[in-house]
Amino acid sequence: VPLLIQELIRIKRDGGALSDDEIRAFISGITDGTVPDYQAAAMLMAVFLRGLDDRETASWAHAMVHSGDVVDLSAIDRPKVDKHSTGGVGDKISLPLAAAAAACGLAVPMVSGRGLGHTGGTLDKLESIPGFQVHLDLDRFVAQVRDLGVCLIGQTERMAPADRVLYALRDVTATVESVPLIASSIMSKKLAEGIDALVLDCKTGSGAFMKTRDEARRLARTIQAIGRAADTPVTVVLTRMSEPIGRAVGNATEVIESIEVLRGAGPADTRALTVALGAEMLLCGGLCATVEDGSVAMERVLDNGSALELFARVVEAQGGDRRAVDDPSRHLPAARGRTPVLAPTDGYVSACAADQIGIAALLLGAGRRRKEDAIDPAVGIEIACRIGDRVEAGQPLAFLLHCDRGVEAAHERVARAYTLAPAAPAPDQLILEVLR
Amino acid sequence: VPLLIQELIRIKRDGGALSDDEIRAFISGITDGTVPDYQAAAMLMAVFLRGLDDRETASWAHAMVHSGDVVDLSAIDRPKVDKHSTGGVGDKISLPLAAAAAACGLAVPMVSGRGLGHTGGTLDKLESIPGFQVHLDLDRFVAQVRDLGVCLIGQTERMAPADRVLYALRDVTATVESVPLIASSIMSKKLAEGIDALVLDCKTGSGAFMKTRDEARRLARTIQAIGRAADTPVTVVLTRMSEPIGRAVGNATEVIESIEVLRGAGPADTRALTVALGAEMLLCGGLCATVEDGSVAMERVLDNGSALELFARVVEAQGGDRRAVDDPSRHLPAARGRTPVLAPTDGYVSACAADQIGIAALLLGAGRRRKEDAIDPAVGIEIACRIGDRVEAGQPLAFLLHCDRGVEAAHERVARAYTLAPAAPAPDQLILEVLR
Repeated sequence: VPLLIQELIRIKRDGGALSDDEIRAFISGITDGTVPDYQAAAMLMAVFLRGLDDRETASWAHAMVHSGDVVDLSAIDRPKVDKHSTGGVGDKISLPLAAAAAACGLAVPMVSGRGLGHTGGTLDKLESIPGFQVHLDLDRFVAQVRDLGVCLIGQTERMAPADRVLYALRDVTATVESVPLIASSIMSKKLAEGIDALVLDCKTGSGAFMKTRDEARRLARTIQAIGRAADTPVTVVLTRMSEPIGRAVGNATEVIESIEVLRGAGPADTRALTVALGAEMLLCGGLCATVEDGSVAMERVLDNGSALELFARVVEAQGGDRRAVDDPSRHLPAARGRTPVLAPTDGYVSACAADQIGIAALLLGAGRRRKEDAIDPAVGIEIACRIGDRVEAGQPLAFLLHCDRGVEAAHERVARAYTLAPAAPAPDQLILEVLR
Repeated sequence: VPLLIQELIRIKRDGGALSDDEIRAFISGITDGTVPDYQAAAMLMAVFLRGLDDRETASWAHAMVHSGDVVDLSAIDRPKVDKHSTGGVGDKISLPLAAAAAACGLAVPMVSGRGLGHTGGTLDKLESIPGFQVHLDLDRFVAQVRDLGVCLIGQTERMAPADRVLYALRDVTATVESVPLIASSIMSKKLAEGIDALVLDCKTGSGAFMKTRDEARRLARTIQAIGRAADTPVTVVLTRMSEPIGRAVGNATEVIESIEVLRGAGPADTRALTVALGAEMLLCGGLCATVEDGSVAMERVLDNGSALELFARVVEAQGGDRRAVDDPSRHLPAARGRTPVLAPTDGYVSACAADQIGIAALLLGAGRRRKEDAIDPAVGIEIACRIGDRVEAGQPLAFLLHCDRGVEAAHERVARAYTLAPAAPAPDQLILEVLR
């Protein structure tokens, strides 16, 4: 008897659990198009409101992974470990991290996404490097991971196609913020990379999708359960996303900051996150015995230039202009204007709302409201003052790096993002918790 | 600012109430096609699981009524009152009732539906009369209501088109059994008829969509709330649907039983329901002072032939062969075979599951599994023994009226529908409650 999709929707609607076969039938119908969008949408809303248990979520993710190609990296000897971030503002960590982790001996087969809403995307940042190609076929992807230890691409047509259908539908049916749907979507793409282990940077705070630590922890646990079911351990690093990471928010500007980190410099928090996440990756991959050893190894490749050199070779291998790495200020797109946003009074910065800064960057053209929007790689925000900094009235809090659009609206957003207080706030931790 | 449909879905998803404007925007997008099916499906599931309050339900029904034409019967002097049944097995009441109520002086502008699943539909029954046209345009509909006091048609393309879209979607997205969605769907069609009042036969029991009396009462109250908001009073008659109504289940066979009732004869329960519902219609329309007076008036037109004559004139006016009324056994389609289902033991009939009988009739070809299925007007089930009857082993419980398909499967269903017990069951009421 063929499974009637409306019967599966009914089971979930009434709070029941779907069997592995039923989930497989649903996802397979999504993939081959025999389940129409309207049935998919009804199921997504039923899942949103009724949930999926860990077994169902793992099964759902597994079915999505196998709706398309799974990369075969078995011919590569190195441990294959990737990192994923749930999305933040100024989150350029993937760029220095992938190169540095590979310079330490890992294979990093990194498939990334684009920015949407107030968060940026690794692909958009990479594409601000003139010539950089993020759309490679899987053969070339595998060859580069083998030869250089790292390749940075976008999801191909044939990776987790069921996820692509459901992801697009969720956006227009108000079914995005569901832990099992978010977790299975992330893992369907990561497990398709053929990795041995994953480090998840799970962000929480005003600038993250998971506003509270409990929500973030729930997502983390769900992702770990999917990983366990697929024999792919996931280490979760819960990190704070209350202000942007580092000083650059945008695309070319974030590449510049990434290169600074790869030169052993850069803002302290950007470097610290890169080192911490890299150390966890090395630990997962068995390339170090303790996280402290991992940190030392990461710091070494950032400080001795080997991570930078590897990044430059990746840029070249993927068609990019290596001069953008050697002399970024001359060979990356630059904004035409740099306009300060001034402190209205004296005080201490007590908040710098990351989501507002992200939206300000979007308004300048650094992000997209809808998938089809074009972005301007040159624009963004340069953060001058961070939480805890003492400022005087008239001192720049941040600079808008702009071309011709959105300056006024972005100015207003950035000004609103900052809160000044008479006393310094209690210092807050960047890395909140590690779940191994 | 245009309303984003996903924002409306989100409000309902999170258990909020939609404003009248928001509901209007959603239904209007359904009508003009700017809201795609997948957004409609997500909203339907959110409504299914979160509900609509009375104000939202009335607003939803109102928006569906005004998504299309509303019949203007203001030029007709008589009180305009219709009846709707939530659907049963052997429920041919609309046929004798419409004619008898009109013979008593009401205008009955009756727009009916087709059978789906185990329940029959008035249009299918009427179409078993050779030549009978159920698809008339609204001008002809209004003219016939004016001239004869009654017209029996199907929903036109331009009546409540939003309901047609949502009704079709609900069927394939497991969002059928929702009280606000059922209530607003029923009322969107009935209010489009231009009636002054409605009598609702709300069925409960194993053969009804509402299995329990509480569910039926909840549907009744919701429909009354919609009616109140539209200044159209609704009287609800809660009736038992545990066994089929009367002795005939099918199409031509139900027309024959209807004609018997119109001749002042017919099974006692079919006549009793016709009289009771008609009395409530007359009371709603102000044509009698008490329900007892209304019953007397109904009995009179059934017994003196005036309802039968009016029915014959309606058949003629709508293109049907009036000889089917005068001599139904010769001029209505007849089944080729009549096969008894025998009692396996002695005993009292303690159950005759209406839904199983309905499915048996469907298997013989009297109903449809899917909208596009063709039906056979000649086939059906003839009930020989009813709940409470004393039977002996080998005595026929029912007869299958069949042509060439489904005889074995239908036989099994009918045999299974009957339960025989050593003692007579306690008698049950047909009319459970009237909510005026």
